[in-house]
Amino acid sequence: MKARKKVTVGLLILFQGLNLLAEDGYQLWLRYAPITEHARVESVKAVMNQIHVSGSSSTMDVIREELIRACKGMLGTDPVFDQESPEQAGLIIGTPATCSLLDNEEIRKQLASLGQEGYYVTYLTSAENSPLLIAANTDLGTLYGTFHLLRLLQATGKPGQLPLAEAPRIRHRVLNHWDNLDGTVERGYAGFSIWNWHKLPKYLDSRYRDYARANASIGINGSVVTNVNANALVLTPAYIEKVKALADVFRPYGIRIYLTARFSSPLEIGGLATADPLDPEVRTWWKNKADEIYRSIPDFGGFVVKANSEGQPGPQNYGRSHADGANMLAEALGPHGGIVMWRAFVYSAEIEEDRAKQANNEFVPYDGSFLDNVFIQVKNGAIDFQPREPFHPLFGAMPETPLALELQITQEYLGQGTHLVFLAPLFKECLDADTFIPARGSTVAKVVDGSVYDREASAMAGVSNIGTDRNWTGHLFGQANWFAFGRLAWDHQATSEDIAAEWIRLTFGKEPDLVTQIQKMMLTSREAVVNYMTPLGLHHIMGRNHHYGPGPWVDGGRPDWTSVYYHQADRLGIGFDRTASGSDALSQYAKEIRTLYADPRTCPEEFLLWFHHLPWDYTMNSGKSLWEELCYKYDQGVKQVREMKASWEELEAWVDQERFAHVSALLGIQEEEAAWWRNACLLYFQQFSGRPFPADIEPPEGTLEYYQKLSFPYAPGIRPRW
Amino acid sequence: MKARKKVTVGLLILFQGLNLLAEDGYQLWLRYAPITEHARVESVKAVMNQIHVSGSSSTMDVIREELIRACKGMLGTDPVFDQESPEQAGLIIGTPATCSLLDNEEIRKQLASLGQEGYYVTYLTSAENSPLLIAANTDLGTLYGTFHLLRLLQATGKPGQLPLAEAPRIRHRVLNHWDNLDGTVERGYAGFSIWNWHKLPKYLDSRYRDYARANASIGINGSVVTNVNANALVLTPAYIEKVKALADVFRPYGIRIYLTARFSSPLEIGGLATADPLDPEVRTWWKNKADEIYRSIPDFGGFVVKANSEGQPGPQNYGRSHADGANMLAEALGPHGGIVMWRAFVYSAEIEEDRAKQANNEFVPYDGSFLDNVFIQVKNGAIDFQPREPFHPLFGAMPETPLALELQITQEYLGQGTHLVFLAPLFKECLDADTFIPARGSTVAKVVDGSVYDREASAMAGVSNIGTDRNWTGHLFGQANWFAFGRLAWDHQATSEDIAAEWIRLTFGKEPDLVTQIQKMMLTSREAVVNYMTPLGLHHIMGRNHHYGPGPWVDGGRPDWTSVYYHQADRLGIGFDRTASGSDALSQYAKEIRTLYADPRTCPEEFLLWFHHLPWDYTMNSGKSLWEELCYKYDQGVKQVREMKASWEELEAWVDQERFAHVSALLGIQEEEAAWWRNACLLYFQQFSGRPFPADIEPPEGTLEYYQKLSFPYAPGIRPRW
Repeated sequence: MKARKKVTVGLLILFQGLNLLAEDGYQLWLRYAPITEHARVESVKAVMNQIHVSGSSSTMDVIREELIRACKGMLGTDPVFDQESPEQAGLIIGTPATCSLLDNEEIRKQLASLGQEGYYVTYLTSAENSPLLIAANTDLGTLYGTFHLLRLLQATGKPGQLPLAEAPRIRHRVLNHWDNLDGTVERGYAGFSIWNWHKLPKYLDSRYRDYARANASIGINGSVVTNVNANALVLTPAYIEKVKALADVFRPYGIRIYLTARFSSPLEIGGLATADPLDPEVRTWWKNKADEIYRSIPDFGGFVVKANSEGQPGPQNYGRSHADGANMLAEALGPHGGIVMWRAFVYSAEIEEDRAKQANNEFVPYDGSFLDNVFIQVKNGAIDFQPREPFHPLFGAMPETPLALELQITQEYLGQGTHLVFLAPLFKECLDADTFIPARGSTVAKVVDGSVYDREASAMAGVSNIGTDRNWTGHLFGQANWFAFGRLAWDHQATSEDIAAEWIRLTFGKEPDLVTQIQKMMLTSREAVVNYMTPLGLHHIMGRNHHYGPGPWVDGGRPDWTSVYYHQADRLGIGFDRTASGSDALSQYAKEIRTLYADPRTCPEEFLLWFHHLPWDYTMNSGKSLWEELCYKYDQGVKQVREMKASWEELEAWVDQERFAHVSALLGIQEEEAAWWRNACLLYFQQFSGRPFPADIEPPEGTLEYYQKLSFPYAPGIRPRW
Repeated sequence: MKARKKVTVGLLILFQGLNLLAEDGYQLWLRYAPITEHARVESVKAVMNQIHVSGSSSTMDVIREELIRACKGMLGTDPVFDQESPEQAGLIIGTPATCSLLDNEEIRKQLASLGQEGYYVTYLTSAENSPLLIAANTDLGTLYGTFHLLRLLQATGKPGQLPLAEAPRIRHRVLNHWDNLDGTVERGYAGFSIWNWHKLPKYLDSRYRDYARANASIGINGSVVTNVNANALVLTPAYIEKVKALADVFRPYGIRIYLTARFSSPLEIGGLATADPLDPEVRTWWKNKADEIYRSIPDFGGFVVKANSEGQPGPQNYGRSHADGANMLAEALGPHGGIVMWRAFVYSAEIEEDRAKQANNEFVPYDGSFLDNVFIQVKNGAIDFQPREPFHPLFGAMPETPLALELQITQEYLGQGTHLVFLAPLFKECLDADTFIPARGSTVAKVVDGSVYDREASAMAGVSNIGTDRNWTGHLFGQANWFAFGRLAWDHQATSEDIAAEWIRLTFGKEPDLVTQIQKMMLTSREAVVNYMTPLGLHHIMGRNHHYGPGPWVDGGRPDWTSVYYHQADRLGIGFDRTASGSDALSQYAKEIRTLYADPRTCPEEFLLWFHHLPWDYTMNSGKSLWEELCYKYDQGVKQVREMKASWEELEAWVDQERFAHVSALLGIQEEEAAWWRNACLLYFQQFSGRPFPADIEPPEGTLEYYQKLSFPYAPGIRPRW
C-alpha cells in the first residue's frame, strides 16, 4: 500500500494528533464521520433533507435522535423533520398503523412475512418525489431499518440496493454479561462492569443508553446483565429496582433485560430450607419471584441458569434432573412470556468420562422433557471456547428441544484484551458446520434458527467483551467481534469478509486500500491465534485459572482443569484419542462425521489431535512429521502476527494518531506473546518428542524453566485474590 | 437568579443536548472552552498571536502542545510558534539559560528567590512590542507559569495583575493513590484504578498523560501510585519495569513517582528470614532494592509506608521503633535523593488508650531521631478523615521532624461518590488552625511548610479521588477537591472562596450569577455534611467496614472500630470526654487550646462532643438543650442539601444537559441520604435521650430497626467479598 504523503513539519503533526484525539473509540461503529466527497454529500442530503418520522413512541424518539446525530455528524447540519406533510419528505419512517402513506396493500404484503422486527426499505414511487421509505410492522422494526440505512449511508454514502426486506433469522439475540455485583467482570478484559449497581436506580450513567443504542444498531435484542456464576442478591427487591431502572433505559431500543438465576436462591434469600425444584414451596417461591419481577419489568426476558456445573448449585443437589430444574423456572416465567436459557455447560471431575462427552450424556436423555419456553444453551464446542473446536455434538442430538448457541465474544482463550483476533470466522465455522442430522445440510445455524425442525423458537447468546474501558472492549478490534456477533445473530448467512469490510468502513473509513489491508489482517488473525496457541487440534493448554499465556505443563488438582489431560503428550506421541479406541466422543456425532474423523488420514488436520493420539513421526499431508508440522504451525502463527503488525504500520498516515498508536502498541504485545506461546509450548513438547526443532524455524528463545516460573497473580478477568 | 429564556421547541432542546454531549467531564479544568466575547478574544489573541518557546526539552514540548490545545480550544485557531525571532513574539517562555532575551539582571534577580519551581510573569518592556513573558529557573517552572497563564486566560480572558512572581510554599505536593495491583481502589468511588498494571509497560493508556497534565496544571509534583496497605510485588523487577513506564510518561510534567513499601518485603519477595530493620541483610536488601529502582527511575520520589497499623507489618514486629524502620529506608533512598513518608496513622486495639492519643504517644518520643529525608505523614485529625476533626496534636509536637500533612480528597467519610462536598474549607480549617507551638500564629500550615522552624523540607499529601470513571472523580464536583488540594499544596494562603470561584469559571463558565450561585452551594456543602452526619463534634458513627451511610449502633468486635466507642451515648448524655476527667487527649495540645477547650462553656461548639460528654439537657449557646440542638443540626443539614439542590435546578438553562443531569441526579441521592443519616442518627440517639423531637423539625421517617437492617454487601471502596 502506498503511504499517503507524510506531513513533515513537526508541529503540524503534533497538532494533527491533538485534533484527532476525539477518536477514542467510544462512538464504536456509530461515528457518523463527516462526509467530504461531493457526490456522497449530495446523496446523503437527498435522504436527510426532509424527514417524516410517524408515531410518537419512545422508540420513534430514539429514531429522531439518531437521525439528528447522524445528520449532524455526516453533514454538519440538522435534519429537517416534517411531521405535517409526509408527502413532501425525502425519507419516511413508520408503520402502516401510524402513517397513512404506508397503509397500502403492497407495503402490507411486503411486511406480512417480516414479523415483529423486520423492515422494508424502498422508494415510494407512488408519491410525488419518490421518497425513501422505511416501513415495518412495529416501531422497533423501523428502528432496525433506520440503523440499517444509516450503516449504509456511513459505509457507502448510498442507501444500497432497493427494495430491501430484512428480518432476523434468530428470535433472541442476547449478550451475556459475566458481570458480578461487586463490579468485576469474570473473563472481562476491558476494565470493570459498566453496571454501577451501587448508584442505581437513581443515577443512570449515560453509558447505559449508548450501550442500548449500540446493541440496537446491530440487532441485539436482549441483555443478560449478570454473571452465570450467579448471585442470588440480584433477585432481592433492592436489586430488582435497580434492574428495572436499566430495563427502562433499554426498552425504547427493543432490548429486553434478563438475569441469571442462582438455583439456591430460595435458600439464600427466600428463607426456605430447600431449593428442591419439586418442592411446592420452592415452586411457589419462584412463581412469586417471577411475578414480582414482572410487576416492575413487564417485558423482562427471563433467566439464564448455570446449574450443577463448576460448583454452582442445581437440581442434581436434590436428586432431580436438569429438566426438573429448568421446567420449574419456565413455569414461573411462562405466564409472563419469559424464557429460560439453561446452560448445557456441565461436566464433573467425579465422572470417569471424557469431559467432551458429558453434556450429551447429561442432556440427550431429557430431549422432549423441557417446557416450550426452555432453551438449552450450548457452547459452540464441547470443551470451552478454545481457539478451535469441532462443533458441539449436542447440535443435532436434541431434535425436540430448542438449542441456543452460546458464543464467547470476550477472548478468554484467544489473547484476552491484547490480541487482535477477529472472531467472525470462528463463529461462522461453527454455524456453517454440517451436523448431518437429520440429513446433510443441517448446519448448526439451521439447527439453531429452527429451520431444520420448522420451529419458531431460536436464540443466540454471546458472552460480552464490554467493560468500562473508554472504547468499550479494551482492544479497538474487540469492537469488531461485538459487531460480528450482532450481525451474525441477525443473519448467520452473512460472510466474515462482508462483516469485516463493513465494520472497517464504519470504523476507519472507506478508502479501498485501507479496507482491503485491514480486512486481510482481520481474516488472518483467527488462524494465526490457532497456530501460535493450539494448532492441529490441540486445546486447553493455557495458564491455570487466569487462562493467560501458555501452560501446557499445567498438571495436578482436578484433572479436567489441567493441560496434560487434554494434550496427552508422552514419549510416544501427542493428542486425545476420542475414537472408539479412546473415549469414543466421536460416537456422539453423525455417521458421516464419525466415518471421516475416525481415520487420521481423513480427519481434517485442524482437528487431528482433538480426536487422535498420534506418534511424533506420524506423516502429515505435507509430508512432514507431526513434530515438524507442529513446530512449523507454531512458528507460522508468530510470523502471521508479525505480518499483521507490519501491515498495520503501513497505515500510519491513514489512521488517526490515537487509534493508530493504540493498535500498534497492542500488536507489539501480541507479537511478544505469540512468540511466548510458541517458545513455551515447543520447549515443553520437545521434552516428549525428543526431536530437534526444524532448522528453518526461529529457534525458541529462553528455557522451559523460565516460562514455567512466570507468575501472574493479578491477571485480569478472574476475581481478585489477596 | 433569573433563568435564561428557555427554548421550547422539543427537537431543538434535544439537539442542544446532543451537541453538548462532549461535556463528559474528562477535560477537567483544562477545557479551553471557546471564547466568544470580542474583547476577550482580542486579549487572548494578543498573547497567542506569536509565541516563542525556548529550549528543547520534553517539558518544553509539553508547553507547546498545551498552547496548541488552548489556542485551538479558546480561539479555534492554531498558535504561531516562532523559534527564530523571539523579539517579534507576543509571548516568550523560557529560562535565562535558554533564551538570551531573558538573560538580564532584572529577571535573574526576580528569579533568584523563586527556586526550582517558581515562575515570573511580566511584560518585557525592554523589547519593542512589550511581549508577555514567562520566565523561570527551570523548564518545569515555565510549565507551571504557562498553566498559570492559561488558567487566567480561561477564567478571565486576561493575563491578570502583572508582574507576578510565584513559588510553591510546599516542596513535595503529592497524590496518594490507594490503588491495589488487582485494579481495585481502597476507598475509591470513581470506578477502579487508572493504572492498568497488566498492560504496562508496553501499553500506555492515553489517560496516563492526561493525568500528568492535570496534576501539573495545579502544581502537583508527585504521585504515589500504590496503596498504603501495600503489596510487596510492586517492588519486583516485573513491576519496577511497569512503574518505570509510568515514570517516563510523568517526567516531562515534573511529576515524580513514589511507591508504597511493604515493610515485610524482604521476607515476601526477598527470600530473607526476617524484615528486622536492624538486621544487616535486611538493610542491604533495601539498599539494593533502592539502587535497582533508581537504575530504572533516576528521579524516583521515594517510599510511603504504613507500618504497624491496622494489621500492616512494621518494625515493632521485631521490637524496633518507627525511627528504626524509617531510617533504614531513608538510608537506602538518601544517596539517590529519595524521601520516606512514614505515616503516623497508628493505633492499636490492644493499647488501653484513647485512639486519638496514640499517634502522639508513639511518635513524640522519637522526635529528632529521624534522618533528614524522613517525613512523618500526619492526617489532618487524630481519628480518621471525619467530616470535622480538630487538628492533629502531632502538629506542633515534633519540632525536630518535618511533618507532612495528609488530607483525604476521596470522600470516604463524606458521602463517598455521590455527595457534593467541597473540601477546601475542611482543608483550610486544618491549615489555618493555630497550634500555639512554639507561639501564637504557628498554624498547621506554617508547621507543615517549615516556616515556623525555618526548615526547607515540606510536604503535603492528598489521598486521591481519581478512578476510571470518565470524569475521573465520579462526582463532577469531586474534581473541585482534586483542584483545591493542588492549589492549597502550592499556596495554602489561597482562600476557599477564590479556589471555588476559579474552578467554577474553568469548569462551567464565567457568568457572574452562575459563579456566585455555584460558589454558594460549594461553600455551604461542607457544613451541610457535618450537620447531617456528625454535628457538634460527633465522629466515627458510620456503617461498618464500607463506611457507607449511618451506623451509630455499630458495636461489637474491635472497640476502636465501633461507633459506640466514639459517641458514648447513654441515658445521661453523649460525647467523648477527652478532658482531664476522661482520656485527657486534650493535654496533647498547647496550653492556649487546653484552657479554652477544657470548659464546655468556652470549647467551640463544633468540637463540643469531641472533647466532652454532656447531659442531654445541657444548655447550648442558642439556649436550646443539647438534645434539641442535635436535632436541629441534623435537620439543618438536610435542609441545606435541599437548598443546594434547588440552587442547582435553577441553573438548568446555564449548564449543558449532560453535566446538569449528572449533578442533578447526584444531588437527588445526596438529599435522600442526608435524610437517611438524620433519621437513623436521631432515632438511634433518641433511645438514650428519651426526649421528643422538636416540633418544628421534619420528623424522622421510618423505624430504627429498618435503618439498622439495611445491608450493603457491595458498597464500593472496599475489597470485594464473596
